[in-house]
Amino acid sequence: MHIGIIGLGLIGGSLGLDLRSQGHYVWGLSRSQSTCNQAIDIGVTDFAGLSLGDIKTFAQTDVIFICTPIDAILKTIEAIAPHLDSSIILTDVGSVKASIVHAAQKLHPRFIGGHPMAGTAFSGINAAQANLFQGRPCVLTPNDSSDPEALNILRSLWQSVGAVVYECDPEIHDRAVAWISHLPILVSAGLILACDQEPDQAIAQLSKHLASSGFRDTSRVGGGNPQLGTLIAEYNQKALLDSLKQYQAVLANLIQQIESGNWQNLEKSLVLAQELRNSYLII
Amino acid sequence: MHIGIIGLGLIGGSLGLDLRSQGHYVWGLSRSQSTCNQAIDIGVTDFAGLSLGDIKTFAQTDVIFICTPIDAILKTIEAIAPHLDSSIILTDVGSVKASIVHAAQKLHPRFIGGHPMAGTAFSGINAAQANLFQGRPCVLTPNDSSDPEALNILRSLWQSVGAVVYECDPEIHDRAVAWISHLPILVSAGLILACDQEPDQAIAQLSKHLASSGFRDTSRVGGGNPQLGTLIAEYNQKALLDSLKQYQAVLANLIQQIESGNWQNLEKSLVLAQELRNSYLII
Repeated sequence: MHIGIIGLGLIGGSLGLDLRSQGHYVWGLSRSQSTCNQAIDIGVTDFAGLSLGDIKTFAQTDVIFICTPIDAILKTIEAIAPHLDSSIILTDVGSVKASIVHAAQKLHPRFIGGHPMAGTAFSGINAAQANLFQGRPCVLTPNDSSDPEALNILRSLWQSVGAVVYECDPEIHDRAVAWISHLPILVSAGLILACDQEPDQAIAQLSKHLASSGFRDTSRVGGGNPQLGTLIAEYNQKALLDSLKQYQAVLANLIQQIESGNWQNLEKSLVLAQELRNSYLII
Repeated sequence: MHIGIIGLGLIGGSLGLDLRSQGHYVWGLSRSQSTCNQAIDIGVTDFAGLSLGDIKTFAQTDVIFICTPIDAILKTIEAIAPHLDSSIILTDVGSVKASIVHAAQKLHPRFIGGHPMAGTAFSGINAAQANLFQGRPCVLTPNDSSDPEALNILRSLWQSVGAVVYECDPEIHDRAVAWISHLPILVSAGLILACDQEPDQAIAQLSKHLASSGFRDTSRVGGGNPQLGTLIAEYNQKALLDSLKQYQAVLANLIQQIESGNWQNLEKSLVLAQELRNSYLII
Protein backbone atom coordinates (compact mmCIF):
# COMPACT_ATOMS: atom_id res chain seq x y z
CA MET A 1 0.00 0.00 0.00
CA HIS A 2 0.90 3.66 -0.23
CA ILE A 3 0.93 5.17 3.25
CA GLY A 4 1.41 8.67 4.64
CA ILE A 5 2.50 9.52 8.17
CA ILE A 6 2.05 13.08 9.44
CA GLY A 7 4.16 13.69 12.55
CA LEU A 8 7.39 11.72 12.77
CA GLY A 9 7.90 11.24 16.51
CA LEU A 10 8.14 8.07 18.58
CA ILE A 11 4.80 6.65 17.36
CA GLY A 12 4.90 7.92 13.76
CA GLY A 13 8.55 6.96 13.40
CA SER A 14 8.11 3.47 14.83
CA LEU A 15 5.04 2.89 12.66
CA GLY A 16 7.00 3.94 9.56
CA LEU A 17 9.82 1.51 10.36
CA ASP A 18 7.38 -1.39 10.72
CA LEU A 19 5.20 -0.53 7.71
CA ARG A 20 8.20 -0.13 5.40
CA SER A 21 9.57 -3.47 6.58
CA GLN A 22 6.21 -4.96 5.43
CA GLY A 23 6.91 -3.63 1.93
CA HIS A 24 4.61 -0.60 2.00
CA TYR A 25 5.70 2.68 0.44
CA VAL A 26 5.73 5.28 3.23
CA TRP A 27 5.96 9.05 2.98
CA GLY A 28 6.20 11.34 5.97
CA LEU A 29 5.47 14.93 6.87
CA SER A 30 7.24 16.86 9.61
CA ARG A 31 7.58 20.51 10.55
CA SER A 32 11.33 20.04 10.81
CA GLN A 33 13.73 19.50 7.90
CA SER A 34 16.22 17.70 10.13
CA THR A 35 13.50 15.27 11.22
CA CYS A 36 12.69 14.66 7.53
CA ASN A 37 16.35 13.93 6.78
CA GLN A 38 16.61 11.69 9.84
CA ALA A 39 13.42 9.81 8.82
CA ILE A 40 14.94 8.87 5.49
CA ASP A 41 18.37 8.12 6.98
CA ILE A 42 17.09 5.61 9.53
CA GLY A 43 14.50 4.03 7.24
CA VAL A 44 11.32 5.41 8.80
CA THR A 45 10.03 6.73 5.45
CA ASP A 46 10.82 6.41 1.75
CA PHE A 47 10.30 10.13 1.37
CA ALA A 48 9.70 13.00 3.78
CA GLY A 49 8.73 16.64 3.27
CA LEU A 50 7.56 19.74 5.05
CA SER A 51 4.18 20.05 3.29
CA LEU A 52 1.72 18.00 1.26
CA GLY A 53 2.90 19.88 -1.84
CA ASP A 54 6.28 18.19 -1.46
CA ILE A 55 4.73 14.71 -1.67
CA LYS A 56 4.78 13.92 -5.39
CA THR A 57 3.04 10.56 -4.86
CA PHE A 58 0.30 12.09 -2.70
CA ALA A 59 -2.51 11.24 -5.15
CA GLN A 60 -1.68 7.53 -4.87
CA THR A 61 -1.95 7.48 -1.06
CA ASP A 62 -4.27 4.83 0.45
CA VAL A 63 -4.01 5.58 4.15
CA ILE A 64 -2.75 8.58 6.16
CA PHE A 65 -1.85 8.22 9.84
CA ILE A 66 -1.88 11.47 11.83
CA CYS A 67 0.73 11.03 14.55
CA THR A 68 0.95 14.58 15.91
CA PRO A 69 0.30 15.63 19.53
CA ILE A 70 -3.41 15.56 20.48
CA ASP A 71 -3.95 19.31 20.09
CA ALA A 72 -2.60 19.33 16.52
CA ILE A 73 -4.74 16.47 15.17
CA LEU A 74 -7.86 18.44 14.21
CA LYS A 75 -5.83 21.40 12.94
CA THR A 76 -3.88 19.01 10.73
CA ILE A 77 -7.07 17.44 9.37
CA GLU A 78 -8.55 20.89 8.69
CA ALA A 79 -5.42 21.80 6.74
CA ILE A 80 -5.23 18.66 4.62
CA ALA A 81 -8.94 17.79 4.18
CA PRO A 82 -9.44 20.06 1.12
CA HIS A 83 -6.65 18.15 -0.67
CA LEU A 84 -7.80 14.62 0.22
CA ASP A 85 -9.53 12.38 -2.28
CA SER A 86 -12.61 10.90 -0.58
CA SER A 87 -11.14 7.40 -1.04
CA ILE A 88 -8.16 8.09 1.24
CA ILE A 89 -8.49 6.48 4.67
CA LEU A 90 -7.57 8.88 7.44
CA THR A 91 -6.75 7.83 11.01
CA ASP A 92 -4.88 9.09 14.06
CA VAL A 93 -3.02 7.75 17.10
CA GLY A 94 -4.28 10.18 19.80
CA SER A 95 -4.85 8.95 23.33
CA VAL A 96 -8.32 10.51 23.49
CA LYS A 97 -10.98 9.80 20.90
CA ALA A 98 -14.51 11.26 21.25
CA SER A 99 -13.45 14.90 21.06
CA ILE A 100 -11.41 14.15 17.94
CA VAL A 101 -13.42 11.52 16.08
CA HIS A 102 -16.71 13.40 15.72
CA ALA A 103 -15.08 16.57 14.42
CA ALA A 104 -12.68 14.63 12.19
CA GLN A 105 -15.49 12.65 10.54
CA LYS A 106 -17.21 15.87 9.56
CA LEU A 107 -14.01 17.06 7.88
CA HIS A 108 -13.31 13.74 6.16
CA PRO A 109 -15.97 10.99 6.33
CA ARG A 110 -13.41 8.23 5.77
CA PHE A 111 -11.76 9.01 9.13
CA ILE A 112 -11.60 6.31 11.83
CA GLY A 113 -9.92 7.06 15.16
CA GLY A 114 -7.12 4.89 16.49
CA HIS A 115 -5.06 4.64 19.66
CA PRO A 116 -2.05 2.32 19.79
CA MET A 117 -1.13 1.91 23.47
CA ALA A 118 2.61 1.71 23.16
CA GLY A 119 5.39 3.98 24.21
CA THR A 120 8.72 4.34 25.90
CA ALA A 121 10.13 6.91 28.29
CA PHE A 122 11.57 8.72 25.26
CA SER A 123 10.07 10.80 22.46
CA GLY A 124 10.99 12.11 19.03
CA ILE A 125 12.17 10.35 15.90
CA ASN A 126 15.40 9.21 17.54
CA ALA A 127 13.29 7.13 19.93
CA ALA A 128 11.56 5.31 17.02
CA GLN A 129 12.02 1.57 17.19
CA ALA A 130 10.96 -1.49 15.21
CA ASN A 131 8.29 -3.75 16.76
CA LEU A 132 7.12 -1.09 19.23
CA PHE A 133 3.51 -2.25 18.75
CA GLN A 134 4.20 -5.99 19.02
CA GLY A 135 1.70 -7.51 21.47
CA ARG A 136 0.39 -4.08 22.52
CA PRO A 137 -3.28 -3.07 22.43
CA CYS A 138 -4.48 -0.78 19.65
CA VAL A 139 -8.03 0.56 19.95
CA LEU A 140 -9.94 1.52 16.81
CA THR A 141 -13.08 3.59 17.35
CA PRO A 142 -15.45 3.24 14.40
CA ASN A 143 -19.08 4.29 14.75
CA ASP A 144 -22.27 3.73 12.74
CA SER A 145 -21.16 6.02 9.95
CA SER A 146 -17.70 4.45 9.55
CA ASP A 147 -16.83 2.70 6.29
CA PRO A 148 -16.46 -1.08 6.96
CA GLU A 149 -13.79 -1.47 4.26
CA ALA A 150 -11.69 1.31 5.78
CA LEU A 151 -12.03 -0.37 9.17
CA ASN A 152 -10.89 -3.71 7.71
CA ILE A 153 -7.82 -2.11 6.16
CA LEU A 154 -6.82 -0.27 9.34
CA ARG A 155 -7.37 -3.40 11.44
CA SER A 156 -5.15 -5.41 9.08
CA LEU A 157 -2.41 -2.77 9.11
CA TRP A 158 -2.26 -2.62 12.92
CA GLN A 159 -2.36 -6.41 13.16
CA SER A 160 0.47 -6.61 10.61
CA VAL A 161 2.72 -4.63 12.98
CA GLY A 162 1.81 -6.99 15.84
CA ALA A 163 -0.85 -4.96 17.66
CA VAL A 164 -3.81 -6.61 19.41
CA VAL A 165 -6.76 -4.67 17.98
CA TYR A 166 -9.84 -3.73 20.02
CA GLU A 167 -12.84 -1.93 18.52
CA CYS A 168 -15.35 0.21 20.38
CA ASP A 169 -17.21 3.53 20.36
CA PRO A 170 -15.00 6.58 20.94
CA GLU A 171 -16.84 7.30 24.22
CA ILE A 172 -16.25 3.77 25.52
CA HIS A 173 -12.54 4.10 24.71
CA ASP A 174 -12.33 7.41 26.54
CA ARG A 175 -14.00 6.09 29.70
CA ALA A 176 -11.84 2.94 29.73
CA VAL A 177 -8.55 4.82 29.35
CA ALA A 178 -9.69 7.44 31.87
CA TRP A 179 -9.56 4.69 34.52
CA ILE A 180 -6.31 2.93 33.72
CA SER A 181 -4.27 5.57 31.93
CA HIS A 182 -5.48 9.11 32.70
CA LEU A 183 -6.62 8.77 36.35
CA PRO A 184 -3.22 7.29 37.34
CA ILE A 185 -1.47 10.43 36.04
CA LEU A 186 -3.44 12.71 38.37
CA VAL A 187 -3.37 10.30 41.32
CA SER A 188 0.39 10.04 40.94
CA ALA A 189 1.03 13.77 40.40
CA GLY A 190 -1.08 14.46 43.51
CA LEU A 191 1.22 12.18 45.53
CA ILE A 192 4.32 14.15 44.53
CA LEU A 193 2.64 17.51 45.15
CA ALA A 194 1.30 16.37 48.54
CA CYS A 195 4.76 15.27 49.72
CA ASP A 196 5.94 18.80 48.95
CA GLN A 197 3.45 20.14 51.51
CA GLU A 198 5.45 18.87 54.51
CA PRO A 199 6.22 22.06 56.48
CA ASP A 200 9.14 20.64 58.52
CA GLN A 201 12.27 20.88 56.38
CA ALA A 202 14.09 18.11 58.28
CA ILE A 203 11.24 15.71 57.58
CA ALA A 204 10.95 16.83 53.96
CA GLN A 205 14.68 16.28 53.47
CA LEU A 206 14.69 12.87 55.18
CA SER A 207 11.73 11.71 53.09
CA LYS A 208 13.69 12.55 49.94
CA HIS A 209 16.58 10.42 51.16
CA LEU A 210 14.33 7.52 52.12
CA ALA A 211 12.20 7.45 48.95
CA SER A 212 12.59 4.07 47.36
CA SER A 213 10.96 1.76 44.81
CA GLY A 214 7.44 2.24 46.23
CA PHE A 215 7.59 6.00 45.79
CA ARG A 216 9.45 5.68 42.49
CA ASP A 217 6.77 3.49 40.89
CA THR A 218 3.74 5.26 42.35
CA SER A 219 5.05 8.68 41.30
CA ARG A 220 6.35 7.72 37.84
CA VAL A 221 3.44 8.73 35.60
CA GLY A 222 2.70 11.81 37.72
CA GLY A 223 6.22 13.02 36.98
CA GLY A 224 5.79 12.48 33.23
CA ASN A 225 5.35 14.95 30.38
CA PRO A 226 3.28 17.89 31.81
CA GLN A 227 2.07 19.03 28.38
CA LEU A 228 0.74 15.57 27.53
CA GLY A 229 -0.96 15.26 30.92
CA THR A 230 -2.64 18.65 30.44
CA LEU A 231 -3.81 17.82 26.90
CA ILE A 232 -5.25 14.51 28.10
CA ALA A 233 -7.20 16.31 30.85
CA GLU A 234 -8.44 18.91 28.38
CA TYR A 235 -9.50 16.44 25.68
CA ASN A 236 -10.91 13.78 28.03
CA GLN A 237 -12.23 16.20 30.65
CA LYS A 238 -15.59 14.59 31.43
CA ALA A 239 -14.49 10.96 31.69
CA LEU A 240 -11.41 11.93 33.71
CA LEU A 241 -13.50 14.02 36.13
CA ASP A 242 -15.94 11.13 36.60
CA SER A 243 -13.02 8.82 37.46
CA LEU A 244 -11.40 11.38 39.75
CA LYS A 245 -14.60 11.91 41.72
CA GLN A 246 -15.10 8.20 42.14
CA TYR A 247 -11.49 8.01 43.30
CA GLN A 248 -12.12 10.78 45.85
CA ALA A 249 -15.05 8.80 47.28
CA VAL A 250 -13.00 5.59 47.53
CA LEU A 251 -10.13 7.45 49.20
CA ALA A 252 -12.50 9.11 51.68
CA ASN A 253 -13.75 5.64 52.60
CA LEU A 254 -10.21 4.34 53.19
CA ILE A 255 -9.43 7.41 55.31
CA GLN A 256 -12.60 6.83 57.33
CA GLN A 257 -11.53 3.23 57.99
CA ILE A 258 -8.13 4.43 59.25
CA GLU A 259 -9.58 7.31 61.25
CA SER A 260 -12.04 5.06 63.04
CA GLY A 261 -9.43 2.35 63.54
CA ASN A 262 -11.52 -0.19 61.67
CA TRP A 263 -8.53 -2.37 60.83
CA GLN A 264 -10.65 -5.35 59.86
CA ASN A 265 -12.44 -3.36 57.14
CA LEU A 266 -9.20 -1.74 56.02
CA GLU A 267 -7.61 -5.15 55.60
CA LYS A 268 -10.67 -6.32 53.63
CA SER A 269 -10.24 -3.29 51.32
CA LEU A 270 -6.54 -4.04 50.81
CA VAL A 271 -7.24 -7.74 50.19
CA LEU A 272 -9.79 -6.70 47.56
CA ALA A 273 -7.28 -4.30 45.97
CA GLN A 274 -4.71 -7.09 45.77
CA GLU A 275 -7.21 -9.50 44.18
CA LEU A 276 -8.57 -6.93 41.73
CA ARG A 277 -5.12 -5.95 40.54
CA ASN A 278 -4.51 -9.54 39.48
CA SER A 279 -7.52 -9.31 37.15
CA TYR A 280 -5.80 -6.66 35.02
CA LEU A 281 -4.02 -8.16 32.05
CA ILE A 282 -0.95 -6.05 32.49
CA ILE A 283 1.68 -6.38 29.82
CA MET B 1 30.32 -10.14 68.18
CA HIS B 2 27.64 -12.52 69.36
CA ILE B 3 24.35 -11.65 67.69
CA GLY B 4 20.79 -12.92 68.02
CA ILE B 5 18.08 -12.60 65.38
CA ILE B 6 14.45 -13.21 66.34
CA GLY B 7 12.28 -13.77 63.27
CA LEU B 8 14.01 -15.41 60.32
CA GLY B 9 12.18 -13.98 57.30
CA LEU B 10 13.48 -11.92 54.39
CA ILE B 11 15.02 -9.21 56.60
CA GLY B 12 16.21 -11.40 59.50
CA GLY B 13 17.52 -14.04 57.11
CA SER B 14 19.37 -11.58 54.89
CA LEU B 15 20.86 -9.86 57.93
CA GLY B 16 22.08 -13.20 59.30
CA LEU B 17 23.79 -14.05 56.00
CA ASP B 18 25.65 -10.72 55.95
CA LEU B 19 26.59 -10.67 59.66
CA ARG B 20 27.92 -14.25 59.56
CA SER B 21 29.98 -13.40 56.48
CA GLN B 22 31.55 -10.61 58.61
CA GLY B 23 32.68 -13.26 61.13
CA HIS B 24 30.01 -12.68 63.80
CA TYR B 25 28.46 -15.63 65.61
CA VAL B 26 24.71 -15.53 64.87
CA TRP B 27 21.91 -17.43 66.54
CA GLY B 28 18.31 -17.29 65.41
CA LEU B 29 14.85 -17.83 66.83
CA SER B 30 11.84 -18.87 64.78
CA ARG B 31 8.39 -20.27 65.54
CA SER B 32 8.94 -22.95 62.89
CA GLN B 33 11.36 -25.88 63.18
CA SER B 34 11.66 -26.12 59.39
CA THR B 35 12.70 -22.44 59.23
CA CYS B 36 15.33 -23.16 61.92
CA ASN B 37 16.69 -26.09 59.90
CA GLN B 38 16.66 -24.00 56.72
CA ALA B 39 18.46 -21.11 58.49
CA ILE B 40 21.36 -23.39 59.39
CA ASP B 41 21.38 -25.15 56.00
CA ILE B 42 21.71 -21.94 53.96
CA GLY B 43 24.11 -20.23 56.36
CA VAL B 44 21.78 -17.59 57.83
CA THR B 45 22.64 -18.58 61.43
CA ASP B 46 25.19 -20.70 63.29
CA PHE B 47 22.42 -22.04 65.49
CA ALA B 48 18.63 -21.72 65.49
CA GLY B 49 15.98 -22.73 68.01
CA LEU B 50 12.31 -22.33 68.89
CA SER B 51 12.82 -20.54 72.23
CA LEU B 52 15.43 -18.59 74.18
CA GLY B 53 15.92 -21.69 76.36
CA ASP B 54 17.35 -23.48 73.31
CA ILE B 55 20.10 -20.87 72.88
CA LYS B 56 22.97 -22.19 74.97
CA THR B 57 25.16 -19.18 74.21
CA PHE B 58 22.39 -16.70 75.08
CA ALA B 59 24.28 -15.18 78.05
CA GLN B 60 27.14 -14.14 75.73
CA THR B 61 24.86 -12.24 73.32
CA ASP B 62 25.84 -8.62 72.55
CA VAL B 63 23.01 -7.52 70.25
CA ILE B 64 19.56 -8.90 69.46
CA PHE B 65 17.69 -7.87 66.30
CA ILE B 66 13.93 -8.36 66.41
CA CYS B 67 12.86 -9.04 62.84
CA THR B 68 9.24 -10.15 63.36
CA PRO B 69 6.18 -8.48 61.79
CA ILE B 70 5.32 -5.11 63.37
CA ASP B 71 2.53 -6.42 65.59
CA ALA B 72 4.79 -9.08 67.16
CA ILE B 73 7.69 -6.75 68.11
CA LEU B 74 6.41 -5.53 71.49
CA LYS B 75 5.01 -8.94 72.41
CA THR B 76 8.41 -10.44 71.67
CA ILE B 77 10.20 -7.85 73.79
CA GLU B 78 7.74 -8.42 76.65
CA ALA B 79 8.48 -12.14 76.48
CA ILE B 80 12.28 -11.88 76.38
CA ALA B 81 12.90 -8.78 78.55
CA PRO B 82 12.90 -10.65 81.88
CA HIS B 83 15.73 -12.86 80.55
CA LEU B 84 17.90 -10.06 79.12
CA ASP B 85 21.02 -8.84 80.86
CA SER B 86 20.88 -5.03 80.90
CA SER B 87 24.06 -4.90 78.79
CA ILE B 88 22.42 -6.57 75.77
CA ILE B 89 21.60 -4.13 73.00
CA LEU B 90 18.09 -4.65 71.63
CA THR B 91 16.87 -3.30 68.30
CA ASP B 92 14.20 -3.99 65.68
CA VAL B 93 13.58 -3.57 61.96
CA GLY B 94 9.93 -2.43 61.97
CA SER B 95 8.72 0.10 59.42
CA VAL B 96 7.05 2.27 62.10
CA LYS B 97 8.94 3.53 65.11
CA ALA B 98 7.26 5.87 67.65
CA SER B 99 4.58 3.40 68.73
CA ILE B 100 7.24 0.73 69.25
CA VAL B 101 10.26 2.63 70.54
CA HIS B 102 8.69 4.30 73.60
CA ALA B 103 7.10 1.09 74.87
CA ALA B 104 10.21 -0.98 74.07
CA GLN B 105 12.53 1.38 75.97
CA LYS B 106 10.39 0.94 79.07
CA LEU B 107 10.76 -2.82 78.82
CA HIS B 108 14.50 -2.72 78.07
CA PRO B 109 16.32 0.63 78.36
CA ARG B 110 19.09 -0.47 75.96
CA PHE B 111 16.59 -0.66 73.07
CA ILE B 112 17.12 1.55 70.00
CA GLY B 113 14.68 1.35 67.10
CA GLY B 114 15.85 0.63 63.56
CA HIS B 115 14.32 0.48 60.10
CA PRO B 116 16.36 -0.86 57.19
CA MET B 117 14.55 0.19 54.00
CA ALA B 118 15.24 -2.83 51.87
CA GLY B 119 13.05 -5.54 50.49
CA THR B 120 12.06 -7.59 47.51
CA ALA B 121 8.69 -8.76 46.23
CA PHE B 122 9.23 -12.01 48.16
CA SER B 123 9.13 -12.92 51.84
CA GLY B 124 10.26 -15.71 54.15
CA ILE B 125 13.64 -17.27 54.75
CA ASN B 126 13.85 -18.62 51.20
CA ALA B 127 13.88 -15.02 49.97
CA ALA B 128 16.92 -14.17 52.15
CA GLN B 129 19.84 -12.85 50.13
CA ALA B 130 23.34 -11.58 50.74
CA ASN B 131 23.94 -7.83 50.33
CA LEU B 132 20.25 -6.95 50.54
CA PHE B 133 21.11 -3.80 52.52
CA GLN B 134 23.97 -2.64 50.29
CA GLY B 135 23.48 1.06 49.51
CA ARG B 136 20.01 1.10 51.09
CA PRO B 137 18.93 3.56 53.80
CA CYS B 138 18.67 2.32 57.38
CA VAL B 139 17.12 4.69 59.91
CA LEU B 140 18.08 4.43 63.58
CA THR B 141 15.81 6.28 66.01
CA PRO B 142 17.66 7.03 69.26
CA ASN B 143 16.29 9.63 71.66
CA ASP B 144 17.64 11.50 74.68
CA SER B 145 17.61 8.43 76.87
CA SER B 146 19.42 6.18 74.36
CA ASP B 147 22.86 4.81 75.27
CA PRO B 148 25.48 6.41 72.93
CA GLU B 149 27.66 3.28 72.96
CA ALA B 150 24.73 1.10 71.92
CA LEU B 151 23.99 3.55 69.11
CA ASN B 152 27.62 3.43 67.93
CA ILE B 153 27.57 -0.36 67.82
CA LEU B 154 24.27 -0.54 65.89
CA ARG B 155 25.45 2.13 63.46
CA SER B 156 28.66 0.18 62.81
CA LEU B 157 26.81 -3.09 62.31
CA TRP B 158 24.42 -1.60 59.74
CA GLN B 159 27.26 0.18 57.97
CA SER B 160 29.21 -3.09 57.88
CA VAL B 161 26.42 -4.67 55.80
CA GLY B 162 26.47 -1.71 53.42
CA ALA B 163 23.52 0.34 54.69
CA VAL B 164 23.49 4.16 54.58
CA VAL B 165 22.56 5.04 58.17
CA TYR B 166 20.29 7.98 59.06
CA GLU B 167 19.50 8.95 62.67
CA CYS B 168 16.44 10.84 63.87
CA ASP B 169 13.68 10.90 66.47
CA PRO B 170 11.11 8.12 66.08
CA GLU B 171 8.39 10.70 65.34
CA ILE B 172 10.45 12.30 62.55
CA HIS B 173 11.01 8.86 61.00
CA ASP B 174 7.30 8.09 61.11
CA ARG B 175 6.30 11.35 59.44
CA ALA B 176 8.97 11.00 56.73
CA VAL B 177 8.00 7.42 55.82
CA ALA B 178 4.30 8.33 55.99
CA TRP B 179 4.89 10.54 52.94
CA ILE B 180 7.04 8.37 50.73
CA SER B 181 6.22 4.85 51.86
CA HIS B 182 2.85 4.64 53.62
CA LEU B 183 0.82 7.28 51.73
CA PRO B 184 1.70 5.66 48.36
CA ILE B 185 0.15 2.37 49.56
CA LEU B 186 -3.24 3.98 50.21
CA VAL B 187 -3.10 6.24 47.13
CA SER B 188 -2.33 3.21 45.01
CA ALA B 189 -4.90 0.88 46.61
CA GLY B 190 -7.51 3.61 46.12
CA LEU B 191 -6.72 3.65 42.39
CA ILE B 192 -7.40 -0.08 42.04
CA LEU B 193 -10.58 0.09 44.12
CA ALA B 194 -11.85 3.13 42.17
CA CYS B 195 -11.38 1.39 38.81
CA ASP B 196 -13.61 -1.39 40.16
CA GLN B 197 -16.44 1.14 40.55
CA GLU B 198 -17.06 1.41 36.78
CA PRO B 199 -20.70 0.31 36.42
CA ASP B 200 -20.54 -0.50 32.67
CA GLN B 201 -19.17 -4.03 32.30
CA ALA B 202 -17.96 -3.47 28.73
CA ILE B 203 -15.88 -0.49 29.85
CA ALA B 204 -14.60 -2.32 32.94
CA GLN B 205 -13.54 -5.26 30.78
CA LEU B 206 -11.88 -3.07 28.14
CA SER B 207 -9.95 -1.15 30.80
CA LYS B 208 -8.54 -4.45 32.09
CA HIS B 209 -7.33 -5.30 28.59
CA LEU B 210 -5.82 -1.86 28.04
CA ALA B 211 -4.03 -1.54 31.41
CA SER B 212 -0.36 -1.10 30.75
CA SER B 213 2.85 0.05 32.42
CA GLY B 214 1.30 3.26 33.81
CA PHE B 215 -1.40 1.34 35.66
CA ARG B 216 1.02 -1.44 36.59
CA ASP B 217 3.46 0.91 38.31
CA THR B 218 0.90 3.20 39.94
CA SER B 219 -1.06 0.23 41.35
CA ARG B 220 1.91 -1.90 42.46
CA VAL B 221 2.22 -1.00 46.14
CA GLY B 222 -1.58 -0.79 46.53
CA GLY B 223 -1.78 -4.42 45.42
CA GLY B 224 0.88 -5.48 47.95
CA ASN B 225 0.59 -7.44 51.20
CA PRO B 226 -2.77 -6.42 52.78
CA GLN B 227 -1.74 -7.45 56.30
CA LEU B 228 1.40 -5.30 56.15
CA GLY B 229 -0.55 -2.34 54.79
CA THR B 230 -3.08 -2.65 57.60
CA LEU B 231 -0.40 -2.92 60.30
CA ILE B 232 1.36 0.16 58.92
CA ALA B 233 -1.90 2.14 59.05
CA GLU B 234 -2.56 0.93 62.60
CA TYR B 235 0.92 1.65 63.95
CA ASN B 236 1.48 4.92 62.06
CA GLN B 237 -2.13 6.07 62.17
CA LYS B 238 -1.64 9.76 62.97
CA ALA B 239 1.19 10.55 60.54
CA LEU B 240 -0.54 8.58 57.77
CA LEU B 241 -3.84 10.41 58.33
CA ASP B 242 -2.05 13.77 58.22
CA SER B 243 -0.48 12.82 54.88
CA LEU B 244 -3.74 11.45 53.50
CA LYS B 245 -5.64 14.63 54.34
CA GLN B 246 -2.99 16.79 52.74
CA TYR B 247 -3.22 14.51 49.71
CA GLN B 248 -7.01 14.95 49.61
CA ALA B 249 -6.56 18.73 49.55
CA VAL B 250 -3.99 18.58 46.74
CA LEU B 251 -6.21 16.25 44.73
CA ALA B 252 -9.22 18.52 45.22
CA ASN B 253 -7.16 21.39 43.84
CA LEU B 254 -6.15 19.39 40.74
CA ILE B 255 -9.80 18.40 40.21
CA GLN B 256 -10.84 22.03 40.52
CA GLN B 257 -8.29 23.01 37.85
CA ILE B 258 -9.69 20.35 35.49
CA GLU B 259 -13.32 21.16 36.29
CA SER B 260 -12.84 24.86 35.60
CA GLY B 261 -10.76 24.17 32.50
CA ASN B 262 -7.81 26.08 33.90
CA TRP B 263 -5.30 24.26 31.70
CA GLN B 264 -2.55 26.79 32.32
CA ASN B 265 -2.63 26.15 36.08
CA LEU B 266 -2.95 22.40 35.59
CA GLU B 267 0.14 22.43 33.40
CA LYS B 268 1.98 24.47 36.05
CA SER B 269 1.02 21.84 38.65
CA LEU B 270 2.25 19.00 36.44
CA VAL B 271 5.49 20.85 35.65
CA LEU B 272 6.02 21.27 39.40
CA ALA B 273 5.32 17.57 40.00
CA GLN B 274 7.88 16.64 37.35
CA GLU B 275 10.51 18.94 38.87
CA LEU B 276 9.84 17.86 42.45
CA ARG B 277 10.09 14.17 41.58
CA ASN B 278 13.62 14.75 40.35
CA SER B 279 14.58 16.03 43.81
CA TYR B 280 13.91 12.61 45.36
CA LEU B 281 17.05 10.54 45.63
CA ILE B 282 15.41 7.38 44.40
CA ILE B 283 17.53 4.27 44.48
